[in-house]
Amino acid sequence: MSTKTIPVAISARHIHVSEEDLQALFGPNASLTKDFDLSQPGQYAAKERVSIEGPKGVIHNVRILGPVRPATQVEVSKTDALKLGINPPLRQSGDVKNSASIKISNGEQAITIKQGAIIAQAHIHMTEQDAKEFNVENNEIVSVEVESERPITMRGVVVRVSKDFSLEMHIDTDEANAGFIKQQAKGTIFKITK
Amino acid sequence: MSTKTIPVAISARHIHVSEEDLQALFGPNASLTKDFDLSQPGQYAAKERVSIEGPKGVIHNVRILGPVRPATQVEVSKTDALKLGINPPLRQSGDVKNSASIKISNGEQAITIKQGAIIAQAHIHMTEQDAKEFNVENNEIVSVEVESERPITMRGVVVRVSKDFSLEMHIDTDEANAGFIKQQAKGTIFKITK
Repeated sequence: MSTKTIPVAISARHIHVSEEDLQALFGPNASLTKDFDLSQPGQYAAKERVSIEGPKGVIHNVRILGPVRPATQVEVSKTDALKLGINPPLRQSGDVKNSASIKISNGEQAITIKQGAIIAQAHIHMTEQDAKEFNVENNEIVSVEVESERPITMRGVVVRVSKDFSLEMHIDTDEANAGFIKQQAKGTIFKITK
Repeated sequence: MSTKTIPVAISARHIHVSEEDLQALFGPNASLTKDFDLSQPGQYAAKERVSIEGPKGVIHNVRILGPVRPATQVEVSKTDALKLGINPPLRQSGDVKNSASIKISNGEQAITIKQGAIIAQAHIHMTEQDAKEFNVENNEIVSVEVESERPITMRGVVVRVSKDFSLEMHIDTDEANAGFIKQQAKGTIFKITK
């Protein structure tokens, strides 16, 4: 395989909202206000923030990412899930069917979504050219090693190939904190042979 | 190497106290009250709990483990450290020289220790017989794989050999949450050859 490394980005908890839920939370005709662009083309961090709440706790100041999506999705870490008292499944982004319920609030406005809370599976965005170079396919599960003072290998990382992507691995804060991984650390990909 | 697996125990944040600090926090002649025994011989969870505080936050209900030790030591996860706003080094238990300062309080009584806050390095307690079987030595750094829905390999795990130990791996909550590892999961040890 290629020895090319992959830049690692750490995703803090965040939420994607549907048009309908955006308006339920922020009022009719509300729209997202771009704060800054994210690395994947067209994606941005919005200035709008909400609170998320489960049976055991609440977490404030959770950032909304834009643009709006067909379905609302709340991405949390396992640590967050334990604090909230919810049990979200490990899923790829967009796969929210029968995922966990959660309450989302913005001051006095609140909604409870029946499904949408997930723990995002670690994944690598890459182009078809990258995939050829790494000898991997879309949806393939690979291992990724990151060097640090407390090194870990993540062995359940999914490859996502699209011409709209730029090469980047996304992990959550639990994976980052376990591996002492900082933003823009470099990961090395390994094919899983067994 | 042996294919024998190692039971994994997850250590939540906790504190070991010196006699002097115990009395500063709980009053003259205070002693620890055993709540339940831990797996390592002679060690126990005490009923006494304290709050720990750094520049950015506070965490309540942190359990004291007994018996008292020569020096007070506060073991937190990286997630905790970020919340508290402190930067504890990754250390073996007992190695607190020049580690992070932290405030410890019990209601109205509070102390600030100049050093003592650490992130505990993942480690395996084992007997000399276990060490022979695994072909490892005291202080050797090994890798440990744990199977789960989100499998990780921890590649900086230190072996600690003593006749007073019983075979068990200790990891922190970040490592557990990153790897979806539950109490008494089984780890497989690998020698690091490079």
